[in-house]
Amino acid sequence: MSVDPARDVLDAESRATGDDHDALRVWLRLLATTHGIEALVRGRLQARFGITLARFDYLAQLERSPQGLRMRELSERLMVTGGNVTGLTDALEAEGHVVREADPDDRRAFRVRLTPAGRRVFRAMASEHERWIVEIFAQMAPRDVARLRDLLGQVKQQVRSIGGARPIAGARP
Amino acid sequence: MSVDPARDVLDAESRATGDDHDALRVWLRLLATTHGIEALVRGRLQARFGITLARFDYLAQLERSPQGLRMRELSERLMVTGGNVTGLTDALEAEGHVVREADPDDRRAFRVRLTPAGRRVFRAMASEHERWIVEIFAQMAPRDVARLRDLLGQVKQQVRSIGGARPIAGARP
Repeated sequence: MSVDPARDVLDAESRATGDDHDALRVWLRLLATTHGIEALVRGRLQARFGITLARFDYLAQLERSPQGLRMRELSERLMVTGGNVTGLTDALEAEGHVVREADPDDRRAFRVRLTPAGRRVFRAMASEHERWIVEIFAQMAPRDVARLRDLLGQVKQQVRSIGGARPIAGARP
Repeated sequence: MSVDPARDVLDAESRATGDDHDALRVWLRLLATTHGIEALVRGRLQARFGITLARFDYLAQLERSPQGLRMRELSERLMVTGGNVTGLTDALEAEGHVVREADPDDRRAFRVRLTPAGRRVFRAMASEHERWIVEIFAQMAPRDVARLRDLLGQVKQQVRSIGGARPIAGARP
C-alpha cells in the first residue's frame, strides 16, 4: 500500500514480503543495511588504498591490541575461519605490516601484532574510514543514533543469550 | 565507566573504544549484531539441514521470484560475486533444486528458478528459519522492533544516496 523507499533497491531485503513476520522483516533490513555499508566501505578502501575490506578489518583488530592477538582471538573477532586468518597473516607479514611472535603464555601458540609501519599505514586509512562512517550517520539526530545503538544492543544480547554470539566450534565450514 | 553487557563478547565490536565517534560505535555494533545472527543461523542450518547459509540465501531469493531471476540479479541480491553464484547454481542444479532456462527477454542470458522439489525443501527450512528469527526479537516490544526497522531504513537510505547500496561494477574482486 505505502511506498517504502528503503526497500526500493535490489539487496538482501528484496526477498521480504508483506506476509513476513515483523521479526523477519527487521532482520532482512538489518542484513541489507550492513551489506550496503560494507559495499560502500569495500569500494572506497579499494579505490583509495587498494586494500581489501578483510585486510582492513584484520589490521583494525590488531590496532586496538598493542600487545598483539593470538590467531584464535583474531579469528573469533573477525568471524572468519582460521584458514583465512592464516592467509591474511602470511600476506600482511610479507608486506611488513604485521609480525608473528611466540606467545609468552603458550609456547605452542603465536601472537600477531602490528609493526610500526603497519600501524602508520593503518591509522591513515582508519581516519578516512571514520569520515565515511560519520557521513553515513550524519543525517540522523544524535538521539536517534543513540537509540539505534541501544536497540541493537538489545538484539545482540538476545542473540548471545540464545547462544550464537560466538562461532560454534566445528559449526563453520 | 559504566558496564555495557552488549560489548562483553569477542566480535567485530571488540575494536570499538571510548574515543571512537558515535557513528563508528553504532556501525561496529551493527556489524557485530549482523554477524552474531548470521553465526546463529549458519550453525542451525548446518546442524538441522546440513545446508550452508549461502545456499539458503540463494534459495530464499529464488523462492520470492516464481518467474526466476537472471544470474546477474541473483548476484546483486546476494551481494556475492558472479563466480560464487555460478558455483552455487551448478551445485543446486545437480541436486535438482533449481533449473537454468534461456531468458525469453535476452537470448544470451540465463534465468534460474526453483524446481517444485526445490521449493518444497526450501519452504520446510524457511519456516524453521523464521522461528529462529522470531525467537531473537521475541524479547523486544513490538514498538521497539518497529522503531529499529525505521532507524535502519534511515541508515539504508543514506547509504543509498551516498551511492553504495548497489555493488559498484568492477569495485568488487
